[in-house]
Amino acid sequence: MTDADDALAIAEVRLTPILVADPPLLNTQGVHQPYTPRLIIELTTEGGATGLGETYGDTKYLDLAQPLATALIGRSVTDLNGLPALAAEVCGDSSPSSQLRSSRGDPNAATGADAVDAGGLRGVQTAGKLRLSVLSGFEVACLDAWGRAAGLPVHALLGGKVRDRVEYGAYLFYRWAQHPGGRGERDDWGAALDPVGVVAQARRFADTYGFTSFKLKGGVFPPAREVAAIRALAAAFPGRPLRLDPNGAWSVATSLRVADALRDVLEYLEDPASGTDRMAQVAAGLRGAGPDGGRRRAGLPLATNMCVTTFDEIAEAFTRDAVQIVLCDHHYWGGLRRTRELAAVCRAFGVGLSMHSNTHLGISLAAMTQVAATVPDLVHACDTHYPWQTEDVLTERLAFRDGRVDVGDAPGLGVALDRDRLAALHRRWLADDGGLRDRDDAAAMRRADPGWTAPAVPRW
Amino acid sequence: MTDADDALAIAEVRLTPILVADPPLLNTQGVHQPYTPRLIIELTTEGGATGLGETYGDTKYLDLAQPLATALIGRSVTDLNGLPALAAEVCGDSSPSSQLRSSRGDPNAATGADAVDAGGLRGVQTAGKLRLSVLSGFEVACLDAWGRAAGLPVHALLGGKVRDRVEYGAYLFYRWAQHPGGRGERDDWGAALDPVGVVAQARRFADTYGFTSFKLKGGVFPPAREVAAIRALAAAFPGRPLRLDPNGAWSVATSLRVADALRDVLEYLEDPASGTDRMAQVAAGLRGAGPDGGRRRAGLPLATNMCVTTFDEIAEAFTRDAVQIVLCDHHYWGGLRRTRELAAVCRAFGVGLSMHSNTHLGISLAAMTQVAATVPDLVHACDTHYPWQTEDVLTERLAFRDGRVDVGDAPGLGVALDRDRLAALHRRWLADDGGLRDRDDAAAMRRADPGWTAPAVPRW
Ligand SMILES: [Mg+2]
Ligand SMILES: [Mg+2]
Repeated sequence: MTDADDALAIAEVRLTPILVADPPLLNTQGVHQPYTPRLIIELTTEGGATGLGETYGDTKYLDLAQPLATALIGRSVTDLNGLPALAAEVCGDSSPSSQLRSSRGDPNAATGADAVDAGGLRGVQTAGKLRLSVLSGFEVACLDAWGRAAGLPVHALLGGKVRDRVEYGAYLFYRWAQHPGGRGERDDWGAALDPVGVVAQARRFADTYGFTSFKLKGGVFPPAREVAAIRALAAAFPGRPLRLDPNGAWSVATSLRVADALRDVLEYLEDPASGTDRMAQVAAGLRGAGPDGGRRRAGLPLATNMCVTTFDEIAEAFTRDAVQIVLCDHHYWGGLRRTRELAAVCRAFGVGLSMHSNTHLGISLAAMTQVAATVPDLVHACDTHYPWQTEDVLTERLAFRDGRVDVGDAPGLGVALDRDRLAALHRRWLADDGGLRDRDDAAAMRRADPGWTAPAVPRW
Repeated sequence: MTDADDALAIAEVRLTPILVADPPLLNTQGVHQPYTPRLIIELTTEGGATGLGETYGDTKYLDLAQPLATALIGRSVTDLNGLPALAAEVCGDSSPSSQLRSSRGDPNAATGADAVDAGGLRGVQTAGKLRLSVLSGFEVACLDAWGRAAGLPVHALLGGKVRDRVEYGAYLFYRWAQHPGGRGERDDWGAALDPVGVVAQARRFADTYGFTSFKLKGGVFPPAREVAAIRALAAAFPGRPLRLDPNGAWSVATSLRVADALRDVLEYLEDPASGTDRMAQVAAGLRGAGPDGGRRRAGLPLATNMCVTTFDEIAEAFTRDAVQIVLCDHHYWGGLRRTRELAAVCRAFGVGLSMHSNTHLGISLAAMTQVAATVPDLVHACDTHYPWQTEDVLTERLAFRDGRVDVGDAPGLGVALDRDRLAALHRRWLADDGGLRDRDDAAAMRRADPGWTAPAVPRW
């Protein structure tokens, strides 16, 4: 190590699991629980710089984070290319989560079609994907610490921003007014279960945050109801980019029917069907003639954050032209630098790039903003759940102006930890005896509907 | 800009074209000229850090380098993602080299088959490719300066090395003992025009540098003679990785015949035929049954640094499985960071990675070594012309030990400029009246064979 590297060596890593309030947002698997687990990562270098990271906080992620945190001590925060191998070494198949399928030697691991993970709605879950999600939080913390030590924003460490503001879209959900049994925190959004409710929600998002792009999480109601909601949005916000995402709930035929019904108003259709094979069939249908015999379906791209969520899943999907837009997510792909690599792969194949979001706090929003600012061809508004999260662990929440987050030039991520808030949310995690340490949208739904099980796909 | 960025702002850029001695190495286009042009780039930051870069020095590159150097003043050395757009802006179609085809709107620019650039033997030449080659030198200089300012090696700025030594192979050439008319500098290698000469050259490379992997530049003699040379190498160095690269000189049928003749001893066959379409035909032939009806050809990968030299050329080649290994070259691909992006694309598609070399000096060898050290799956020995270059502009030449270059942890590239050597080689460039400021292997060949023109492909 050089002297500079000595100062950048990791001296301490602190892992703090927390539970964060989450509204009763509906999806095809069930409903969000009243609280969702997140893991906050703090690391300190020998030189005294600190770095923050955030990732999933379910038990299976925590199981992997602990050995990785230990293994990082003494390594430089610049030593990022070695992280995947290190993670594989210290939290490989012998980890407590070894009940999960390893991707190694399992031909179905990357492309198996039908399994949908209730936690992340992120396609097939493998040990490799879990590891990447865990190390993504560490990578962000390393970049934050490196940036703070160098006096450089994270985007500079990624090669520099190409825009000063990153656009986000309104992430609309069917939702209840409150959680079953009145559990959890209250908010004043009220229920949204029909086109009127969805449009009202969109209007509030637009008025409050300036969002001009709208995505509806679908797969909750029969497709005709969701088509009606999108039509209502199109009438209320003429010409604005709209998206619908049923998380793979539909058959190929249903997907094509919905595409025909909405082709004139959708920016893209996200994961209408589950798995690369079904998506490829839908895409082929869209390239072909519509039911009127014309080429009416052409031009509606399919997007995914389910059938392409790792590099292993790219070749088949791109070769078959199954998706035209990939929603990147640094938590899935293993960090900000690998997200940029995904962008390079997409660029080479003429596949568009947008950004996915799961429930997240401000550290992740800052990280998403930093990397999005560096990718020239990330031209779609990014997804974010952030407006739904009333709690955070930052001293100051990130703000949306005109639907955009400013890309600051402060060192690192440019955010600061509120230790009192962190401690309070950690105490909630410690006190949990309601089974909330692992996200389970189907279990939450059973509070309202005792016979509920996550539906098999295609649901419609 | 932050304070740190202020210190990293580029204050000065110095461009020094030079002529470097080059031996009479033969290829399918002709022979190397006695001297070859290179451009040395020095930049200095406001904080006083210096950075070195090296790239092609032909007039058409110099034409683009000058406006880019001017435009860089005041920008941060960390601001690398914006370089391609900046280069397109300041040295776009209005540059003095506008006689070159722009890739924009030209469907043949990326994949047109038969044009071979005598300068680089690098496939079709476009304005976009030229720009990337020019900016690669600036990107390396930026990284060198940033590393020196931060006290970090360039590999750390690329995410850290995953190996401590980078392996290179012996780059064997058919060659004359001296240039036609006795021009240029002399060396003591003697001629190599037959299997005995090639094996002797390989022996000297192995003894002097410890190389254990051998590549012969082919396309010079009828294929049977080159097959005999490879057979002689296999006999002299049993089990060692061997490669043959005729720079696209062969037809599909000839390529398959050579593959059949050498399949048991070649690590890979490099650019046997010209253009993605012919390469795809050769690859399809190799996947199919051999002439004996068995699957005897399977397992011989095709490599290229001609039909895949930009991101635009990847999709067709990978989708058709036309190449199984891409030879990266940061001069082609627009820098070290984009070389890592190429590696990510290759990894996603299961395409192997090796490294290409054109005539280059120690600055480029240091840059090649830094980036190669960061790419986990760069498992083939890299190409380098460096042993053929007896002149350099460094205070200390880089050394091969056991065929490998150590990956240092000194700040930046870890090399220092010898200003006297630089000045001397620049004086040679200033004094040139022999048409050596633009590499032209066919013109050099005409000194020996006045009727020579670069052969059309396929030549055999
Ligand atoms: Mg989605
Ligand atoms: Mg070659």
